[in-house]
Amino acid sequence: MSLVIVGSVAFDAIETPFGKTDKIVGGAATYISLAASRFVKQSKLVAVVGGDFPKQDIEMLRQHGVVTEGLQIKENEKTFFWSGKYHNDMNSRDTLVTELNVLGSFDPILPASYQDCEYLMLGNLSPDVQSSVIERLQKRPKLIVMDTMNFWMEIALPALQKTLTMVDVLSINDEEARQLSGEYSLVKAARKILSMGPRYLIIKKGEHGALLFHEDQVFFAPALPLEEVFDPTGAGDTFAGGFIGYLASTGDVSFNNMKRAIIHGSALASFCVEKFGTERLKEVSEQELDDRLQDFIELVQFEIKIKA
Amino acid sequence: MSLVIVGSVAFDAIETPFGKTDKIVGGAATYISLAASRFVKQSKLVAVVGGDFPKQDIEMLRQHGVVTEGLQIKENEKTFFWSGKYHNDMNSRDTLVTELNVLGSFDPILPASYQDCEYLMLGNLSPDVQSSVIERLQKRPKLIVMDTMNFWMEIALPALQKTLTMVDVLSINDEEARQLSGEYSLVKAARKILSMGPRYLIIKKGEHGALLFHEDQVFFAPALPLEEVFDPTGAGDTFAGGFIGYLASTGDVSFNNMKRAIIHGSALASFCVEKFGTERLKEVSEQELDDRLQDFIELVQFEIKIKA
Repeated sequence: MSLVIVGSVAFDAIETPFGKTDKIVGGAATYISLAASRFVKQSKLVAVVGGDFPKQDIEMLRQHGVVTEGLQIKENEKTFFWSGKYHNDMNSRDTLVTELNVLGSFDPILPASYQDCEYLMLGNLSPDVQSSVIERLQKRPKLIVMDTMNFWMEIALPALQKTLTMVDVLSINDEEARQLSGEYSLVKAARKILSMGPRYLIIKKGEHGALLFHEDQVFFAPALPLEEVFDPTGAGDTFAGGFIGYLASTGDVSFNNMKRAIIHGSALASFCVEKFGTERLKEVSEQELDDRLQDFIELVQFEIKIKA
Repeated sequence: MSLVIVGSVAFDAIETPFGKTDKIVGGAATYISLAASRFVKQSKLVAVVGGDFPKQDIEMLRQHGVVTEGLQIKENEKTFFWSGKYHNDMNSRDTLVTELNVLGSFDPILPASYQDCEYLMLGNLSPDVQSSVIERLQKRPKLIVMDTMNFWMEIALPALQKTLTMVDVLSINDEEARQLSGEYSLVKAARKILSMGPRYLIIKKGEHGALLFHEDQVFFAPALPLEEVFDPTGAGDTFAGGFIGYLASTGDVSFNNMKRAIIHGSALASFCVEKFGTERLKEVSEQELDDRLQDFIELVQFEIKIKA
């Protein structure tokens, strides 16, 4: 089993009603790797940072079991930077700054040791970069999961459509599903999107949970009702990382196991939002994760006997 | 076991993106009674209509097992009328007309045969009318469920607060829970509202499902993902009617049975929205209901073994 994760490693500056941060470590691949590394011994990172990226943060990733051989360091360039401010309801945010920097010319080079990839997680990046990773793998992975966002639907739809034909699972939010399909009903949206390539579709609904569609089957996982969402940044990537990490660790890509993977991803995401950035995610103990999984079971569990 | 249902019986005129109706039969107590009557042999209605209300619609209620002894007919007055238009997303609507008519002076008279009431459902009405029903019952029912809406929070908060201290279960939507508590987080809102009187709180989130809070316990029931919501009118009342009808028919008011009751209410509500008004609700077969309950089980069912 080998899990390869492609995506951004970045600096974020975040403002929420509860406070603000200076530049802290963020980026889709950072959250995905940290979440996946709860379940797999080694997750192999493909990303790029500038010379300004702190060595101790790369070391931190390594200590969490992330293989950084595929992490390119462009010494004379700067790391991707994003800054955003959340509104009071935490469901919407304004982007204040986006500096692509090294990400603007990102060429995802795969070290030879990554060619054993069985599980591939394509974090949000340009669909051309995502498809080039698939093309550079000599053997097609057992499972390819892809995240994307509305930005690519607007400026790179043909490339996105091509990449969609190459993956197994697409993970997007409800707004993006509606935009990609042109359908308001998520059931109709799912049917259209499943005809575009992916065999599985995850629609993330933030505080309202997530839906998994496959053929005529649908599974719903709630989000845990929380007292407070402190910082939603990275929750979707944490979810995706937990999802593919759990699948990779169990080696089972059945629909039933994907349900479990979604619950594991949701549990990790529920920790992620409790503190700024990756802070909470890094410190979650095994006991805490087990307790939270138990919370999910109790949240939705009921017994009804249907007359035969 | 005896179930008493108090609420409006009305005329509605509804416009949705799919079409519009003339005056059709609606009202909270109509939906509640039709839903509850799936589970209990006799549900005893307390309501008022004008002389313009069709006799065959009263007969229709009777045929569904609704006892109409407590339905007052004011021959020289007009039935409550509401007209509304739904927006394209079906999640919001504009009220076009509200004519209180007979409802403006509604005095809920309880026939002697209603004094065996064990389960009382107070549909949305003025909180003074709701509390007067409780006061007129010689014996406190085993379970009192109450619905209300933001309108009463704005114009009759003290009366609403008084009624809240007299009931067991409050059923409101997320927006109303936030308004009543002054808290955005539904977990915090629930804690505050549970300190106002009710021991159980149901927060309805429309297409995002419903939450049940009791002490430190929380249960989440999803709404079934639907291809199309044709007309959402009455879905919340149908949900409440299914909820209390199921509880009354089983005679079990434990938290675990309330979970089942919520799933049964959700299943009936998922039918209600498929056609205009009460049309679909009236024709649901036992087999269809069983199939839909099975859909709910499959939608949320997963198996995770937590290490001890």
